[in-house]
Amino acid sequence: MGELMKIQYLVPEKKQGLVVVITGNGKGKTTSALGMTVRAAGHGMKTCIIQFMKGDIYAGEWDGVKLLGDRVELISTGMGFCGLLGNPYSRQEHRQCAQDALKLVDEKMLSGQIDLLVLDEINNALKLKLIDLDQVISILDSRPSPLHLVLTGRDAHPDVIERADTVSEVNEIKHAYRKGIEPQPGVDY
Amino acid sequence: MGELMKIQYLVPEKKQGLVVVITGNGKGKTTSALGMTVRAAGHGMKTCIIQFMKGDIYAGEWDGVKLLGDRVELISTGMGFCGLLGNPYSRQEHRQCAQDALKLVDEKMLSGQIDLLVLDEINNALKLKLIDLDQVISILDSRPSPLHLVLTGRDAHPDVIERADTVSEVNEIKHAYRKGIEPQPGVDY
Repeated sequence: MGELMKIQYLVPEKKQGLVVVITGNGKGKTTSALGMTVRAAGHGMKTCIIQFMKGDIYAGEWDGVKLLGDRVELISTGMGFCGLLGNPYSRQEHRQCAQDALKLVDEKMLSGQIDLLVLDEINNALKLKLIDLDQVISILDSRPSPLHLVLTGRDAHPDVIERADTVSEVNEIKHAYRKGIEPQPGVDY
Repeated sequence: MGELMKIQYLVPEKKQGLVVVITGNGKGKTTSALGMTVRAAGHGMKTCIIQFMKGDIYAGEWDGVKLLGDRVELISTGMGFCGLLGNPYSRQEHRQCAQDALKLVDEKMLSGQIDLLVLDEINNALKLKLIDLDQVISILDSRPSPLHLVLTGRDAHPDVIERADTVSEVNEIKHAYRKGIEPQPGVDY
């Protein structure tokens, strides 16, 4: 099945970093960024994933990306979802976390060591005012041009969307949890 | 940042396989399925990805998933996108490929060796009549209940959506190629 087919290798005449935004209320935003990580690793590129607002609940990707070796680093900087029922941390604590994460973003972005930088759930962090719009714009403005930057999370700010090259909105058509099905490992976390 | 935080490990009371459909015209469908692969691998689960209608153009994920070791197998069964400008194969050849791929799906699905089975671009294959609706319904009906099944591609059939547990529609808000930017490795392929 296709073994004898000639495989075409695309090589862009002009390599350039893209700003990709993945927003919307459906399943598949962080997941999509993780997929780009696999794709990038296959090309020998290096990825850093900085997870805002996560870190309190174990996610399979924490161990999954380790299998990709030194091509991927995942740093979960948050204390879970600010404002989510059951999350015990104050807004101030969440904001401090997110502000610290921004310093890490700057450091990684300017290190010259990374080809793809994923800012997971940064859109939510902005929406919840854990970081400010001018801080996100500043990241976009200071992005080295070969670096791909991926921003995930619901409620992407219009000014961020305007500055992005590729924007996808993932909409929920249906979700298992609405039928009372619990989150399942490997699919949901 | 969060190092001292107590991490919660979710364990569903009832483990069950889900049918997930990722459709729509935006970037991030195959990518999202690849991300689930990373997540599942982190949980020690085994994934098989069967790519319909691909195989003619090199994609980073072909080498990327190899880094995940024996937890992931990716099989690209197709001859590229049927009907896409420049694709030299006849509809009959594409249909034969897709029909062969279905046999592989049955084999993998019933092997008992896999926790997550991704049928990449199967929605398109159905839309383009390379496979038939009753064949896809038959896959859904014969899925062993612990197996997660992920079906990606545009134009998911309403009868497939009806039978799924979780469905996301990825819509294009904008895409770099509309500005004349070529596909970039690590992001687009």
